[in-house]
Amino acid sequence: VGVTAPEGFVAAGCAGGIKSGGALDLALVATLQRAPVPSAGVFTSNRAVAAPVVVSRAHLQATSGQAAAVVLTSGNANAATGSAGIAHAERLCARVGAELGAEAREVLVCQTGLIGIPFPMDAVEPVLGRLVARAGSSAEAGADAADAIMTTDTVRKEATVAGRGFTVGALAKGAAMLAPDMATMLAVLTTDAGVDPDTLQRLLREAVGSTFNTLSVDGCTSTNDTVLVMANGMAGPVEPADLGPALTEACGSLAEQMAGDAEGATKVAVIRVEGASSDADAHRAARRVAESLLVKCSLNGADPYWGRVVSELGSSGAAFDPDAVSVSYGGFVVCREGVAAAHDGEGLAAHMAGRRIDLLCDLGVGDGRGVVLATDLGYGYIDENRTTS
Amino acid sequence: VGVTAPEGFVAAGCAGGIKSGGALDLALVATLQRAPVPSAGVFTSNRAVAAPVVVSRAHLQATSGQAAAVVLTSGNANAATGSAGIAHAERLCARVGAELGAEAREVLVCQTGLIGIPFPMDAVEPVLGRLVARAGSSAEAGADAADAIMTTDTVRKEATVAGRGFTVGALAKGAAMLAPDMATMLAVLTTDAGVDPDTLQRLLREAVGSTFNTLSVDGCTSTNDTVLVMANGMAGPVEPADLGPALTEACGSLAEQMAGDAEGATKVAVIRVEGASSDADAHRAARRVAESLLVKCSLNGADPYWGRVVSELGSSGAAFDPDAVSVSYGGFVVCREGVAAAHDGEGLAAHMAGRRIDLLCDLGVGDGRGVVLATDLGYGYIDENRTTS
Repeated sequence: VGVTAPEGFVAAGCAGGIKSGGALDLALVATLQRAPVPSAGVFTSNRAVAAPVVVSRAHLQATSGQAAAVVLTSGNANAATGSAGIAHAERLCARVGAELGAEAREVLVCQTGLIGIPFPMDAVEPVLGRLVARAGSSAEAGADAADAIMTTDTVRKEATVAGRGFTVGALAKGAAMLAPDMATMLAVLTTDAGVDPDTLQRLLREAVGSTFNTLSVDGCTSTNDTVLVMANGMAGPVEPADLGPALTEACGSLAEQMAGDAEGATKVAVIRVEGASSDADAHRAARRVAESLLVKCSLNGADPYWGRVVSELGSSGAAFDPDAVSVSYGGFVVCREGVAAAHDGEGLAAHMAGRRIDLLCDLGVGDGRGVVLATDLGYGYIDENRTTS
Repeated sequence: VGVTAPEGFVAAGCAGGIKSGGALDLALVATLQRAPVPSAGVFTSNRAVAAPVVVSRAHLQATSGQAAAVVLTSGNANAATGSAGIAHAERLCARVGAELGAEAREVLVCQTGLIGIPFPMDAVEPVLGRLVARAGSSAEAGADAADAIMTTDTVRKEATVAGRGFTVGALAKGAAMLAPDMATMLAVLTTDAGVDPDTLQRLLREAVGSTFNTLSVDGCTSTNDTVLVMANGMAGPVEPADLGPALTEACGSLAEQMAGDAEGATKVAVIRVEGASSDADAHRAARRVAESLLVKCSLNGADPYWGRVVSELGSSGAAFDPDAVSVSYGGFVVCREGVAAAHDGEGLAAHMAGRRIDLLCDLGVGDGRGVVLATDLGYGYIDENRTTS
């Protein structure tokens, strides 16, 4: 169960003709009352920003953080589409708003898919009425919405978190162009918690920072990344100290699901850096290791070749002492104070053969720590990405 | 012809038992007179610095830029080997120096291969006398030295440049862990030009900046990268304005050879960024595109999917205007002012099918320009790097 789990939210998915073969490609998440509620968003840091990001950001600003619905499309990113793309994204909001009886600016929009192709607004527009009409509060309705935003995802991504007297629901998509500072990922969270827009924005940003921003599949930051949350207050006022962890848990669940479903990945590595001179240094070092092609190839081959890990730590820009660094996989220390360490080769091989690899790097120069989720690099990623046709 | 092309240099290669099967793994480049001459070096920026880099840097400093010989080994990087590794690198210099009748600090050392494995000094030491005894000034002797430093290289890399009354010779290795700010690459240049050490150091640094530092195979910066040059002055004094371009031409030739022989690569892309707000911005943007896994997969598939290119330009940190960017492949403009441009699909496909792809990105916001050489990402790179055993 996902976005329809909290009281007072409806969802829908249907086929709008963007994808071929009648696949689901339009989704809606809306408040049951069709009235705006406190909402917040975190968007891509890419300067090549897609039309839906421009429009959603402007709408949240114009309403001071109020939204009644989110419309989502997949199969075309509506990115690098110029002023026509902006007009299309605006029109999606206006048409959905009209169907709901809401203002255009009370509707947010997320889009994902190929970049640089004009958005087929003519095909989509006649279907929007049906999309809104289908909206329901069942688990199936939420699942339809989650299905409708999948691109290269192979599994639907939803999360539900039960808080103290409130619920958080969520859906997401994301399988590549994934990196900290967001990714080709879209996520919509709903909650019946009561909270003001400014607090909601702060809590969402914190939740994203410790979840989606610790995930790196390929180091690429997309044009369309968006995380949105709507809080309709039907469960009454909720303390930020209660809501924050619930949002973080929901985002964390989605991030783990994305890592597990990453394009062509056969393994997920949890890369922890400790003993750094600061948390920022630890994160920088972990990310450098996570994005190293050589390390990712080693993960694919289940090869505990720590020399590459040390090399990446050393070139990450983080404070580094070659004689202080230690590296272990699954608790097996392979490098201690900068040189090879005797270890249980069989136990290590068994850990490396698993789907989840734990890599711990201790820089030995301070107390800073950070973690990044990474994936391996194998034939599958290349197969998925060498051509778009 | 390579390092023995200039007058007054000798070279040799032989098998020292580091690699299995009697493969060449020891190389020497020395002055014919066995006396120190003005020399200079540029080293990796990786803080996980290998023992030979520590030792060579210290020797050049101790002599104020004078060296009589360079000893090179392959098959073991002598990196992450602690104080024993430093002692081994020092001993290589001392033993070769003793054979030549030179001081230890007048000998420089380069090593390449796997990281974190103790260097087999006991096997190598008895062979060093033979290595020095074999040194000769023939083209074959230079080729032996170039062969002896190959690791995953499939072809020998040498260059010769005829200057105004002087000659520059060079050898190098490098096929992966290649990125600007140096790479797993070693290069030794020789010249009979007469020049002081400070000028030589400046000219070498400039030559490296515009050649090796514009090459990115995988974005990884290794622990061992070293470029050295020895200038014996046998051709008499040479103007910096003459020597600089010759060093740059030699380094440029070696960089092109490395790109062409990059691990698993099927294509070389010349990525030019123009219209940036500064040259630094242009270089940053070009490097981001060059290191993008998604772009590299597209190159492998001969897919002119410019959306990924624009997305990488936008996330590079360079000043960027989504409505000003243009992208072309081989002169075929596929994106103009931020949106798709009509183009000759057949001509474009023919260009993409070739081994060399020209990608031009015009940011449209200034006069800055930069270029990076990149390679594609295919099965071959993964095959080469998934296991070290």
